[in-house]
Amino acid sequence: MKCFDSNDINSLDKIFRINLINSCSGFKSANLLGTISTEGNTNVAVFSSVTHLGSNPPTLGFILRPTTVPRNTYKNIRDMGVFSINHIFEEIIEDAHHSSAKYPEEISEFNVTDLEAEFKEGCKVPFVKNSPVQMEMKYVEQVYIKSNDVIMVVAQIEKLFVNEHLIHEDGFIDLSSGNVVAINGLDGYAALTLKERFGYQRPKK
Amino acid sequence: MKCFDSNDINSLDKIFRINLINSCSGFKSANLLGTISTEGNTNVAVFSSVTHLGSNPPTLGFILRPTTVPRNTYKNIRDMGVFSINHIFEEIIEDAHHSSAKYPEEISEFNVTDLEAEFKEGCKVPFVKNSPVQMEMKYVEQVYIKSNDVIMVVAQIEKLFVNEHLIHEDGFIDLSSGNVVAINGLDGYAALTLKERFGYQRPKK
Repeated sequence: MKCFDSNDINSLDKIFRINLINSCSGFKSANLLGTISTEGNTNVAVFSSVTHLGSNPPTLGFILRPTTVPRNTYKNIRDMGVFSINHIFEEIIEDAHHSSAKYPEEISEFNVTDLEAEFKEGCKVPFVKNSPVQMEMKYVEQVYIKSNDVIMVVAQIEKLFVNEHLIHEDGFIDLSSGNVVAINGLDGYAALTLKERFGYQRPKK
Repeated sequence: MKCFDSNDINSLDKIFRINLINSCSGFKSANLLGTISTEGNTNVAVFSSVTHLGSNPPTLGFILRPTTVPRNTYKNIRDMGVFSINHIFEEIIEDAHHSSAKYPEEISEFNVTDLEAEFKEGCKVPFVKNSPVQMEMKYVEQVYIKSNDVIMVVAQIEKLFVNEHLIHEDGFIDLSSGNVVAINGLDGYAALTLKERFGYQRPKK
């Protein structure tokens, strides 16, 4: 095993450090966040930090640093109070990753990639067409994490759209059957195969 | 697409709802957190919410609800100020998942499963033997997320141990080559295959 202590990590070359530390937390969720500005400009951007916070009310969070990119996503969410979360699936990984490029606000990533915006009745924000899981999210609060100067944006699920073939009888969504991917580090995309479900665990007698 | 709005979600059967909402955020990191109590009792518990917060200083966070399980992990972290994060790999998924069973504090999950505790020089906490990525973490702060009554525990990497065969020249850790898994929902474990790395993206001309 190679060991890096905190001094080693601090003195690493910057690119090596961000690759290493961004891969060391494990696989990450792969989502596209869809937003719209008050002027009607659409935006879509890749995020790998969407995290389950609770099921009742159904709440998710994600991390961003408001003083850096992707500012457009953050500004649109604060202005409009709503956004969409769309799962990245194998067929769109290249375009999904390209949405991390820093385009000016007036350029929509939907126009410079093959990602297609989908508008649904009653929802203001764009979704990513053909994504097997799409959610309309309502902004709830932001929580500042002082030690690292980031915020967690907390949001509730207003509408959840799921390809119904993926839903098991007990509510489990089989993401790998929908070709949903996971992110490794900053720029690695991995395909998945569900190995097993183990159910609720009780102590052995 | 099947659509669930917030009213539908609220009125779902509880088990269906927690399975659905726990699977809908995407794939999750699969980690075992190792702790030790002031009395010297070891504990290991599965978590699926470890999230990258920043690389400088190297900081990760995870979510828990302090008033419910796994209380032992939380109490040990607050008492001792340190814990370990260990990636779950294919060979140990069944035992890793069993660590979610509610054992009393004096029973170590290392004793009721085939998971093996590894102690490293200069570290107080147990690691999970053979895990391809192991980290010694120092507690930094906890951030309360009021809208959902959960906390994010924020911690810095003190020591990062990585199977050196997994580290690319630019610092990227190839988790799938280490058989690191991801979690789907509450109890699904998935194996991964790295498809591609796309690098840093700049706007198209």
